[in-house]
Amino acid sequence: MDRRPIGIFDSGVGGMTVLAEIKRHLPNEDLIYLGDTKNFPYGDKSRETIIKLATKCAGFLISQDVKAIVIACGTATSQALDELKKIYRIPIEGIISPTVQDIKKNRKEEKIKIGVIATEGTIKSNKWEEELNNEIENVEVISKSCPLLAPMAEQGWTSNNVAKEAIREYMKPFINKKIDKIILGCTHYPLFKELIRQELGNEVDIINTGEKVANYLQKYLLSAGIENAKEHIGESIYYLTDTECNFIQVAERLLQDETLKSKIEKINIE
Amino acid sequence: MDRRPIGIFDSGVGGMTVLAEIKRHLPNEDLIYLGDTKNFPYGDKSRETIIKLATKCAGFLISQDVKAIVIACGTATSQALDELKKIYRIPIEGIISPTVQDIKKNRKEEKIKIGVIATEGTIKSNKWEEELNNEIENVEVISKSCPLLAPMAEQGWTSNNVAKEAIREYMKPFINKKIDKIILGCTHYPLFKELIRQELGNEVDIINTGEKVANYLQKYLLSAGIENAKEHIGESIYYLTDTECNFIQVAERLLQDETLKSKIEKINIE
Repeated sequence: MDRRPIGIFDSGVGGMTVLAEIKRHLPNEDLIYLGDTKNFPYGDKSRETIIKLATKCAGFLISQDVKAIVIACGTATSQALDELKKIYRIPIEGIISPTVQDIKKNRKEEKIKIGVIATEGTIKSNKWEEELNNEIENVEVISKSCPLLAPMAEQGWTSNNVAKEAIREYMKPFINKKIDKIILGCTHYPLFKELIRQELGNEVDIINTGEKVANYLQKYLLSAGIENAKEHIGESIYYLTDTECNFIQVAERLLQDETLKSKIEKINIE
Repeated sequence: MDRRPIGIFDSGVGGMTVLAEIKRHLPNEDLIYLGDTKNFPYGDKSRETIIKLATKCAGFLISQDVKAIVIACGTATSQALDELKKIYRIPIEGIISPTVQDIKKNRKEEKIKIGVIATEGTIKSNKWEEELNNEIENVEVISKSCPLLAPMAEQGWTSNNVAKEAIREYMKPFINKKIDKIILGCTHYPLFKELIRQELGNEVDIINTGEKVANYLQKYLLSAGIENAKEHIGESIYYLTDTECNFIQVAERLLQDETLKSKIEKINIE
């Protein structure tokens, strides 16, 4: 047993979709969330910049004595996970590997066609495509970067006409392509799940990576024997590097927690 | 006479709308453009962060031996101009004061109603409202932050359905309000001028701050006797802090200059 909290970080509010899943799967765990809102968005920054920022985020969480770290950010996973694993000894995982392993384990199709949407940086890194091709046989991957979606989510526009037109535009490469699944490769994107469903129809399996990560984490904690006590009720605290943003408004709606504001603290991790 | 270049900076490609006006008004001047694309967007960052970034941008331009600096960024003008003037001796101006002075000088209306659209940071700073109220009598100001427009422009979406819906959404506070003028308080916004025109109609004077800044600069250089030689053909060079972005594509279209790419250099100003 290990009573220490789990650290989770993202560039903004997107990682809260992962936190929500982790809370659901692991109600006994304490969570520390770090939103690097000062440097949002990560999606269009260079690999070099992302590595620097992610290193600081992980370093901060380690200084808070977490027992494991989840990179709840698609961009930081694709650009910086390998580097962070070289730097830090702490168990650390992102959103790609747990998702790909889950698809591999549960695949039923002879041939499988998978769409991936993510930020510019993630798509350019080719990480999803590489890992899907390496792990899964007979797979075809169609990728599309959607640079506006994360900023749109940070602003709380996830169901208005602008979001609708943006999703319509971004979904074009997947229409009439008979994809089996679409991976939401940025943790902000589950906020657009309904609009994506409207565009792609009910046939397509929309993959929320947060759910896969939470599943993975649950198994990992158990197998390593470092889960918290069953009688413990997990608490979450939230650190933001900049509080002049819509984090609270969007996160409150997502978590349905009106006391969220009181659990947020501004910090400097420079 | 002073043959040194003029320095211009912005968080991204928006300031190029100012550069375009400066090139048009001052064809003899050499220009150095700095796009801090690594840290784009400035619009939703804290004042403290903007001051730090703007200080670095201005410092870099000074190291390039410029004779004056234009902050071609609404957010950096509203948040950091006063601080930069305290730090540096070089003549430095942003987009607010030249615009307000121009409106003051040319006003004909008894009462004047002005709309201001800008980034979240600029609107929160209240700088436009303060300066308009201080300088212009009988003025009413209606402000609206438009956080998505700059990221949309950086992506090159300035005329598609998404841009159209976003402009429609953002223009709502100005419809049926009989505004005389609307100030494009972020230098990315002239890229949406046609869509704004469609929403607001022909009655409203749409103010491109770049034009006002270029006018101001022209007069300033002449009065200070530091303009370049009349026979000199001005050249521009462009520095970006991150080149993995759509700067080139958007800027080429804006300036109609296909050789732009060869004049761009990546630099580190950390």
